[in-house]
Amino acid sequence: MKISVVKNILEANDRIAMENRALFEEKDLLVFNLMSSPGAGKTSLLEKTIDALKDEIKMGVIEGDIQSSQDAERIARRGIPVVQINTGGACHIDGNMIRETFKEFNFDDLDLLVVENVGNLVCPAEFNVGENFKAMILSLPEGEDKPSKYPLMFHESEVLLINKIDLAPYLDCSAENIKKEALKVNPRLTVFEISCKTGEGLEAWYSWLKEVVKSGNNE
Amino acid sequence: MKISVVKNILEANDRIAMENRALFEEKDLLVFNLMSSPGAGKTSLLEKTIDALKDEIKMGVIEGDIQSSQDAERIARRGIPVVQINTGGACHIDGNMIRETFKEFNFDDLDLLVVENVGNLVCPAEFNVGENFKAMILSLPEGEDKPSKYPLMFHESEVLLINKIDLAPYLDCSAENIKKEALKVNPRLTVFEISCKTGEGLEAWYSWLKEVVKSGNNE
Repeated sequence: MKISVVKNILEANDRIAMENRALFEEKDLLVFNLMSSPGAGKTSLLEKTIDALKDEIKMGVIEGDIQSSQDAERIARRGIPVVQINTGGACHIDGNMIRETFKEFNFDDLDLLVVENVGNLVCPAEFNVGENFKAMILSLPEGEDKPSKYPLMFHESEVLLINKIDLAPYLDCSAENIKKEALKVNPRLTVFEISCKTGEGLEAWYSWLKEVVKSGNNE
Repeated sequence: MKISVVKNILEANDRIAMENRALFEEKDLLVFNLMSSPGAGKTSLLEKTIDALKDEIKMGVIEGDIQSSQDAERIARRGIPVVQINTGGACHIDGNMIRETFKEFNFDDLDLLVVENVGNLVCPAEFNVGENFKAMILSLPEGEDKPSKYPLMFHESEVLLINKIDLAPYLDCSAENIKKEALKVNPRLTVFEISCKTGEGLEAWYSWLKEVVKSGNNE
Protein backbone atom coordinates (compact mmCIF):
# COMPACT_ATOMS: atom_id res chain seq x y z
CA MET A 1 0.00 0.00 0.00
CA LYS A 2 2.86 2.34 0.83
CA ILE A 3 4.42 1.58 -2.54
CA SER A 4 1.28 2.39 -4.47
CA VAL A 5 1.08 5.78 -2.75
CA VAL A 6 4.62 6.60 -3.77
CA LYS A 7 3.83 5.57 -7.31
CA ASN A 8 0.85 7.93 -7.49
CA ILE A 9 2.92 10.80 -6.17
CA LEU A 10 5.60 10.13 -8.78
CA GLU A 11 3.05 9.91 -11.60
CA ALA A 12 1.39 13.16 -10.59
CA ASN A 13 4.80 14.77 -10.35
CA ASP A 14 5.81 13.61 -13.82
CA ARG A 15 2.70 15.20 -15.31
CA ILE A 16 3.52 18.56 -13.70
CA ALA A 17 7.17 18.24 -14.73
CA MET A 18 6.09 17.81 -18.36
CA GLU A 19 4.02 20.99 -18.15
CA ASN A 20 7.02 22.84 -16.72
CA ARG A 21 9.19 21.49 -19.50
CA ALA A 22 6.77 22.71 -22.17
CA LEU A 23 6.94 26.22 -20.69
CA PHE A 24 10.75 26.15 -20.54
CA GLU A 25 10.90 25.14 -24.22
CA GLU A 26 8.48 27.88 -25.22
CA LYS A 27 10.78 30.37 -23.46
CA ASP A 28 14.01 28.94 -24.98
CA LEU A 29 15.24 28.34 -21.46
CA LEU A 30 17.77 25.65 -20.64
CA VAL A 31 17.17 24.16 -17.18
CA PHE A 32 19.32 21.84 -15.15
CA ASN A 33 18.71 20.21 -11.80
CA LEU A 34 21.81 20.20 -9.57
CA MET A 35 21.90 17.47 -6.92
CA SER A 36 24.33 16.18 -4.30
CA SER A 37 24.73 15.24 -0.65
CA PRO A 38 24.75 18.13 1.82
CA GLY A 39 28.02 20.05 1.68
CA ALA A 40 29.37 18.56 -1.55
CA GLY A 41 29.64 22.06 -3.05
CA LYS A 42 26.49 22.87 -5.04
CA THR A 43 26.31 26.53 -4.01
CA SER A 44 30.07 26.99 -4.33
CA LEU A 45 29.94 25.63 -7.88
CA LEU A 46 27.11 28.01 -8.75
CA GLU A 47 28.97 30.99 -7.28
CA LYS A 48 32.03 30.18 -9.39
CA THR A 49 29.94 29.49 -12.50
CA ILE A 50 27.98 32.73 -12.17
CA ASP A 51 31.18 34.77 -11.74
CA ALA A 52 32.73 33.14 -14.80
CA LEU A 53 29.77 33.20 -17.16
CA LYS A 54 27.37 35.95 -16.17
CA ASP A 55 28.52 38.29 -18.96
CA GLU A 56 27.82 35.58 -21.55
CA ILE A 57 24.83 33.70 -20.15
CA LYS A 58 21.80 35.20 -18.41
CA MET A 59 21.31 32.89 -15.45
CA GLY A 60 18.67 32.47 -12.77
CA VAL A 61 18.72 30.12 -9.79
CA ILE A 62 16.07 28.33 -7.73
CA GLU A 63 17.46 27.41 -4.32
CA GLY A 64 15.87 24.42 -2.62
CA ASP A 65 16.39 24.04 1.12
CA ILE A 66 14.40 22.45 3.90
CA GLN A 67 14.58 25.77 5.69
CA SER A 68 16.78 28.91 5.81
CA SER A 69 17.83 31.13 2.93
CA GLN A 70 21.60 31.12 3.37
CA ASP A 71 22.26 29.70 -0.09
CA ALA A 72 19.89 32.13 -1.81
CA GLU A 73 21.67 35.00 -0.06
CA ARG A 74 25.01 33.75 -1.34
CA ILE A 75 23.65 33.61 -4.90
CA ALA A 76 21.87 36.98 -4.64
CA ARG A 77 25.21 38.64 -3.79
CA ARG A 78 26.32 37.63 -7.29
CA GLY A 79 23.64 39.90 -8.73
CA ILE A 80 21.46 37.38 -10.55
CA PRO A 81 17.79 36.51 -10.00
CA VAL A 82 17.28 33.85 -7.33
CA VAL A 83 14.19 32.38 -5.65
CA GLN A 84 14.31 30.35 -2.46
CA ILE A 85 12.05 27.34 -1.95
CA ASN A 86 11.76 26.18 1.66
CA THR A 87 10.40 22.65 1.53
CA GLY A 88 9.43 22.73 5.22
CA GLY A 89 10.77 19.22 5.83
CA ALA A 90 10.55 17.56 2.42
CA CYS A 91 13.81 16.02 1.33
CA HIS A 92 13.65 16.94 -2.35
CA ILE A 93 12.27 19.47 -4.84
CA ASP A 94 9.31 18.39 -6.95
CA GLY A 95 7.70 19.77 -10.08
CA ASN A 96 4.96 21.58 -8.25
CA MET A 97 7.37 23.49 -6.01
CA ILE A 98 9.23 24.66 -9.12
CA ARG A 99 5.97 25.84 -10.68
CA GLU A 100 5.32 28.00 -7.61
CA THR A 101 8.46 30.03 -8.38
CA PHE A 102 7.49 30.93 -11.96
CA LYS A 103 5.71 34.16 -11.07
CA GLU A 104 8.94 35.41 -9.47
CA PHE A 105 11.00 35.18 -12.68
CA ASN A 106 10.95 36.87 -16.05
CA PHE A 107 11.92 33.90 -18.20
CA ASP A 108 12.20 36.05 -21.34
CA ASP A 109 15.30 37.59 -19.75
CA LEU A 110 17.03 34.28 -19.00
CA ASP A 111 19.09 31.74 -20.97
CA LEU A 112 19.71 29.29 -18.14
CA LEU A 113 17.82 28.33 -15.00
CA VAL A 114 19.57 26.20 -12.38
CA VAL A 115 17.59 24.31 -9.75
CA GLU A 116 19.80 23.68 -6.72
CA ASN A 117 18.08 20.76 -5.06
CA VAL A 118 17.97 19.87 -1.35
CA GLY A 119 21.21 18.21 -0.23
CA ASN A 120 20.40 14.51 -0.42
CA LEU A 121 22.02 11.77 -2.49
CA VAL A 122 18.81 9.73 -2.66
CA CYS A 123 15.34 11.25 -3.07
CA PRO A 124 15.94 14.22 -5.42
CA ALA A 125 16.88 11.78 -8.20
CA GLU A 126 13.35 10.34 -8.16
CA PHE A 127 11.55 13.60 -8.93
CA ASN A 128 11.71 15.30 -12.32
CA VAL A 129 11.05 19.03 -12.25
CA GLY A 130 10.92 19.57 -16.04
CA GLU A 131 14.68 20.00 -16.43
CA ASN A 132 16.66 19.40 -19.64
CA PHE A 133 19.21 17.42 -17.69
CA LYS A 134 20.33 16.51 -14.20
CA ALA A 135 23.83 17.21 -12.92
CA MET A 136 25.30 15.91 -9.69
CA ILE A 137 28.30 16.62 -7.52
CA LEU A 138 30.14 14.03 -5.50
CA SER A 139 32.92 15.38 -3.32
CA LEU A 140 36.08 13.34 -2.88
CA PRO A 141 35.71 12.84 0.91
CA GLU A 142 32.42 11.00 0.34
CA GLY A 143 34.32 7.99 -0.98
CA GLU A 144 34.61 5.59 -3.89
CA ASP A 145 31.71 3.32 -2.92
CA LYS A 146 29.00 5.93 -3.48
CA PRO A 147 28.15 5.11 -7.14
CA SER A 148 27.47 1.46 -6.29
CA LYS A 149 25.61 2.27 -3.06
CA TYR A 150 23.49 5.17 -4.34
CA PRO A 151 23.19 4.30 -8.03
CA LEU A 152 19.96 6.09 -8.94
CA MET A 153 21.37 9.63 -8.94
CA PHE A 154 24.40 8.55 -10.95
CA HIS A 155 22.09 6.74 -13.33
CA GLU A 156 19.74 9.72 -13.81
CA SER A 157 22.46 12.36 -14.20
CA GLU A 158 24.04 13.48 -17.44
CA VAL A 159 26.94 15.22 -15.69
CA LEU A 160 29.03 14.24 -12.66
CA LEU A 161 31.30 16.83 -11.08
CA ILE A 162 33.83 15.32 -8.67
CA ASN A 163 34.58 18.21 -6.30
CA LYS A 164 37.22 18.90 -3.61
CA ILE A 165 40.00 17.19 -5.58
CA ASP A 166 42.41 19.49 -3.70
CA LEU A 167 41.90 17.14 -0.72
CA ALA A 168 43.22 14.10 -2.65
CA PRO A 169 46.62 14.01 -0.86
CA TYR A 170 44.88 13.65 2.51
CA LEU A 171 42.28 11.01 1.59
CA ASP A 172 42.30 7.29 0.87
CA CYS A 173 40.26 7.61 -2.33
CA SER A 174 40.86 8.99 -5.79
CA ALA A 175 38.80 10.86 -8.36
CA GLU A 176 39.94 8.32 -10.92
CA ASN A 177 38.35 5.44 -8.98
CA ILE A 178 35.14 7.40 -8.34
CA LYS A 179 34.93 8.10 -12.06
CA LYS A 180 35.47 4.43 -12.87
CA GLU A 181 32.73 3.33 -10.44
CA ALA A 182 30.34 6.01 -11.68
CA LEU A 183 30.83 4.99 -15.31
CA LYS A 184 29.95 1.41 -14.41
CA VAL A 185 26.55 2.68 -13.23
CA ASN A 186 26.12 5.11 -16.13
CA PRO A 187 28.55 4.93 -19.06
CA ARG A 188 27.01 8.06 -20.62
CA LEU A 189 28.12 10.37 -17.79
CA THR A 190 30.19 13.43 -18.65
CA VAL A 191 32.66 13.71 -15.77
CA PHE A 192 34.55 16.79 -14.55
CA GLU A 193 37.16 16.67 -11.79
CA ILE A 194 37.12 20.02 -10.04
CA SER A 195 38.03 22.02 -6.96
CA CYS A 196 35.77 24.97 -6.23
CA LYS A 197 38.41 26.05 -3.71
CA THR A 198 41.43 26.21 -6.03
CA GLY A 199 39.54 26.56 -9.31
CA GLU A 200 41.21 23.48 -10.79
CA GLY A 201 39.18 21.85 -13.57
CA LEU A 202 36.46 24.50 -13.64
CA GLU A 203 37.36 25.87 -17.10
CA ALA A 204 36.36 22.58 -18.72
CA TRP A 205 32.98 22.70 -16.96
CA TYR A 206 32.40 26.33 -18.03
CA SER A 207 33.19 25.51 -21.68
CA TRP A 208 30.92 22.48 -21.66
CA LEU A 209 28.04 24.43 -20.08
CA LYS A 210 28.39 27.36 -22.50
CA GLU A 211 28.25 24.96 -25.43
CA VAL A 212 25.14 23.22 -24.06
CA VAL A 213 23.32 26.51 -23.39
CA LYS A 214 24.14 27.75 -26.90
CA SER A 215 23.12 24.58 -28.69
CA GLY A 216 20.10 24.11 -26.42
CA ASN A 217 18.81 27.57 -27.20
CA ASN A 218 19.28 27.08 -30.94
CA GLU A 219 17.24 23.89 -31.05
CA MET B 1 -3.38 15.25 0.33
CA LYS B 2 0.26 14.33 -0.02
CA ILE B 3 0.89 15.57 3.53
CA SER B 4 -1.86 13.44 5.01
CA VAL B 5 -0.39 10.34 3.37
CA VAL B 6 3.01 11.05 4.92
CA LYS B 7 1.35 11.54 8.29
CA ASN B 8 -0.34 8.14 8.10
CA ILE B 9 2.91 6.47 7.18
CA LEU B 10 4.64 8.10 10.14
CA GLU B 11 1.85 7.14 12.53
CA ALA B 12 1.86 3.53 11.37
CA ASN B 13 5.63 3.50 11.70
CA ASP B 14 5.54 4.85 15.23
CA ARG B 15 3.19 2.06 16.29
CA ILE B 16 5.56 -0.59 14.92
CA ALA B 17 8.56 1.19 16.47
CA MET B 18 6.88 1.01 19.89
CA GLU B 19 6.38 -2.73 19.47
CA ASN B 20 10.06 -3.12 18.56
CA ARG B 21 11.03 -1.07 21.59
CA ALA B 22 9.00 -3.31 23.90
CA LEU B 23 10.83 -6.37 22.58
CA PHE B 24 14.24 -4.69 22.97
CA GLU B 25 13.42 -3.85 26.59
CA GLU B 26 12.25 -7.37 27.31
CA LYS B 27 15.61 -8.61 25.99
CA ASP B 28 17.68 -5.99 27.92
CA LEU B 29 19.05 -4.84 24.59
CA LEU B 30 20.30 -1.28 24.05
CA VAL B 31 19.65 -0.08 20.51
CA PHE B 32 20.90 3.00 18.74
CA ASN B 33 20.15 4.33 15.30
CA LEU B 34 23.24 5.71 13.53
CA MET B 35 22.57 8.30 10.87
CA SER B 36 24.58 10.59 8.57
CA SER B 37 25.08 11.71 5.01
CA PRO B 38 26.68 9.18 2.66
CA GLY B 39 30.37 8.81 3.32
CA ALA B 40 30.50 10.61 6.67
CA GLY B 41 31.99 7.50 8.30
CA LYS B 42 29.21 5.39 9.83
CA THR B 43 30.72 2.02 8.90
CA SER B 44 34.25 3.16 9.77
CA LEU B 45 33.05 4.24 13.22
CA LEU B 46 31.39 0.86 13.75
CA GLU B 47 34.51 -1.02 12.65
CA LYS B 48 36.62 0.92 15.16
CA THR B 49 34.02 0.57 17.91
CA ILE B 50 33.66 -3.18 17.39
CA ASP B 51 37.44 -3.67 17.48
CA ALA B 52 37.71 -1.65 20.69
CA LEU B 53 34.73 -3.03 22.59
CA LYS B 54 33.88 -6.49 21.34
CA ASP B 55 35.49 -8.23 24.33
CA GLU B 56 33.35 -6.16 26.72
CA ILE B 57 30.08 -5.65 24.84
CA LYS B 58 28.24 -8.20 22.74
CA MET B 59 27.25 -6.22 19.66
CA GLY B 60 25.09 -6.84 16.63
CA VAL B 61 24.58 -4.60 13.61
CA ILE B 62 21.76 -4.02 11.14
CA GLU B 63 23.10 -2.49 7.94
CA GLY B 64 20.67 -0.38 5.93
CA ASP B 65 21.53 0.30 2.31
CA ILE B 66 19.49 1.00 -0.77
CA GLN B 67 21.28 -1.87 -2.42
CA SER B 68 24.57 -3.80 -2.12
CA SER B 69 26.02 -5.48 0.95
CA GLN B 70 29.48 -3.87 1.05
CA ASP B 71 28.98 -2.43 4.53
CA ALA B 72 27.62 -5.68 5.97
CA GLU B 73 30.67 -7.48 4.57
CA ARG B 74 32.96 -4.99 6.29
CA ILE B 75 31.17 -5.56 9.62
CA ALA B 76 31.03 -9.35 9.20
CA ARG B 77 34.83 -9.43 8.87
CA ARG B 78 34.91 -8.16 12.47
CA GLY B 79 33.25 -11.39 13.58
CA ILE B 80 29.98 -10.06 14.98
CA PRO B 81 26.38 -10.80 13.87
CA VAL B 82 25.20 -8.51 11.08
CA VAL B 83 22.06 -8.41 8.96
CA GLN B 84 21.79 -6.41 5.74
CA ILE B 85 18.58 -4.62 4.82
CA ASN B 86 18.35 -3.55 1.19
CA THR B 87 15.62 -0.94 1.00
CA GLY B 88 15.30 -1.29 -2.77
CA GLY B 89 15.14 2.47 -3.31
CA ALA B 90 13.76 3.79 -0.01
CA CYS B 91 15.90 6.52 1.49
CA HIS B 92 15.60 5.49 5.14
CA ILE B 93 15.07 2.52 7.47
CA ASP B 94 11.64 2.21 9.11
CA GLY B 95 10.33 0.17 12.01
CA ASN B 96 8.90 -2.55 9.85
CA MET B 97 12.20 -3.19 8.05
CA ILE B 98 13.89 -3.58 11.42
CA ARG B 99 11.26 -6.07 12.52
CA GLU B 100 12.01 -8.20 9.46
CA THR B 101 15.55 -8.76 10.74
CA PHE B 102 14.55 -10.11 14.18
CA LYS B 103 14.45 -13.75 13.13
CA GLU B 104 18.11 -13.48 12.04
CA PHE B 105 19.38 -12.51 15.51
CA ASN B 106 19.55 -14.20 18.88
CA PHE B 107 18.87 -11.16 21.06
CA ASP B 108 19.58 -13.12 24.27
CA ASP B 109 23.22 -13.15 23.19
CA LEU B 110 23.49 -9.39 22.59
CA ASP B 111 23.99 -6.29 24.76
CA LEU B 112 23.93 -3.71 21.99
CA LEU B 113 22.28 -3.52 18.58
CA VAL B 114 23.33 -0.77 16.18
CA VAL B 115 21.16 0.20 13.23
CA GLU B 116 23.31 1.79 10.54
CA ASN B 117 20.79 3.79 8.56
CA VAL B 118 20.85 4.67 4.85
CA GLY B 119 23.23 7.56 4.16
CA ASN B 120 20.92 10.57 4.13
CA LEU B 121 20.93 13.68 6.33
CA VAL B 122 17.17 14.17 5.97
CA CYS B 123 14.63 11.34 5.92
CA PRO B 124 16.08 8.81 8.42
CA ALA B 125 15.50 11.32 11.24
CA GLU B 126 11.74 11.17 10.63
CA PHE B 127 11.39 7.43 11.23
CA ASN B 128 11.76 5.83 14.65
CA VAL B 129 12.73 2.18 14.60
CA GLY B 130 12.30 1.50 18.33
CA GLU B 131 15.79 2.67 19.29
CA ASN B 132 16.83 3.95 22.74
CA PHE B 133 18.59 6.88 21.11
CA LYS B 134 19.70 8.29 17.78
CA ALA B 135 23.33 9.16 17.06
CA MET B 136 24.56 11.05 14.04
CA ILE B 137 27.86 11.72 12.35
CA LEU B 138 28.72 14.92 10.53
CA SER B 139 32.09 14.93 8.82
CA LEU B 140 34.13 18.11 8.80
CA PRO B 141 34.16 18.53 4.98
CA GLU B 142 30.35 18.80 4.99
CA GLY B 143 30.60 22.29 6.48
CA GLU B 144 29.43 24.49 9.32
CA ASP B 145 26.03 25.37 7.87
CA LYS B 146 24.60 21.85 8.13
CA PRO B 147 22.95 22.13 11.58
CA SER B 148 20.95 25.19 10.53
CA LYS B 149 20.09 23.79 7.10
CA TYR B 150 19.22 20.22 8.15
CA PRO B 151 18.05 20.77 11.74
CA LEU B 152 15.78 17.76 12.22
CA MET B 153 18.50 15.14 12.54
CA PHE B 154 20.50 17.32 14.92
CA HIS B 155 17.33 17.92 16.90
CA GLU B 156 16.40 14.23 17.12
CA SER B 157 19.88 12.95 17.99
CA GLU B 158 21.31 12.50 21.44
CA VAL B 159 24.88 12.19 20.18
CA LEU B 160 26.78 14.05 17.45
CA LEU B 161 30.12 12.68 16.30
CA ILE B 162 32.12 15.19 14.25
CA ASN B 163 34.34 12.97 12.10
CA LYS B 164 37.38 13.52 9.84
CA ILE B 165 38.87 16.17 12.14
CA ASP B 166 42.27 15.17 10.72
CA LEU B 167 41.25 17.17 7.62
CA ALA B 168 40.89 20.43 9.60
CA PRO B 169 44.17 21.98 8.33
CA TYR B 170 42.93 21.68 4.73
CA LEU B 171 39.37 22.95 5.17
CA ASP B 172 37.72 26.32 5.78
CA CYS B 173 35.58 25.08 8.65
CA SER B 174 36.19 23.98 12.21
CA ALA B 175 34.75 21.33 14.52
CA GLU B 176 34.34 24.05 17.13
CA ASN B 177 32.00 26.05 14.89
CA ILE B 178 30.04 22.95 13.87
CA LYS B 179 29.60 22.12 17.54
CA LYS B 180 28.42 25.65 18.29
CA GLU B 181 25.86 25.57 15.45
CA ALA B 182 24.65 22.09 16.43
CA LEU B 183 24.13 23.11 20.06
CA LYS B 184 21.98 26.03 18.90
CA VAL B 185 19.63 23.49 17.31
CA ASN B 186 19.84 21.00 20.19
CA PRO B 187 21.54 22.09 23.44
CA ARG B 188 21.24 18.54 24.87
CA LEU B 189 23.60 17.01 22.27
CA THR B 190 26.62 15.07 23.53
CA VAL B 191 29.37 15.93 21.04
CA PHE B 192 32.52 13.96 20.19
CA GLU B 193 35.21 15.25 17.84
CA ILE B 194 36.84 12.25 16.21
CA SER B 195 38.93 10.92 13.36
CA CYS B 196 38.25 7.31 12.42
CA LYS B 197 41.41 7.53 10.33
CA THR B 198 43.88 8.58 13.06
CA GLY B 199 41.84 7.36 16.04
CA GLU B 200 41.85 10.81 17.66
CA GLY B 201 38.95 11.35 20.07
CA LEU B 202 37.61 7.79 19.83
CA GLU B 203 38.48 6.81 23.42
CA ALA B 204 35.98 9.33 24.78
CA TRP B 205 33.26 7.85 22.56
CA TYR B 206 34.09 4.29 23.63
CA SER B 207 33.94 5.25 27.34
CA TRP B 208 30.64 7.05 26.89
CA LEU B 209 29.10 4.14 24.98
CA LYS B 210 30.28 1.53 27.51
CA GLU B 211 28.73 3.57 30.30
CA VAL B 212 25.41 3.89 28.45
CA VAL B 213 25.25 0.17 27.63
CA LYS B 214 25.98 -0.75 31.25
CA SER B 215 23.49 1.66 32.79
CA GLY B 216 20.90 0.92 30.08
CA ASN B 217 21.06 -2.80 30.74
CA ASN B 218 20.75 -2.30 34.49
CA GLU B 219 17.61 -0.22 34.19
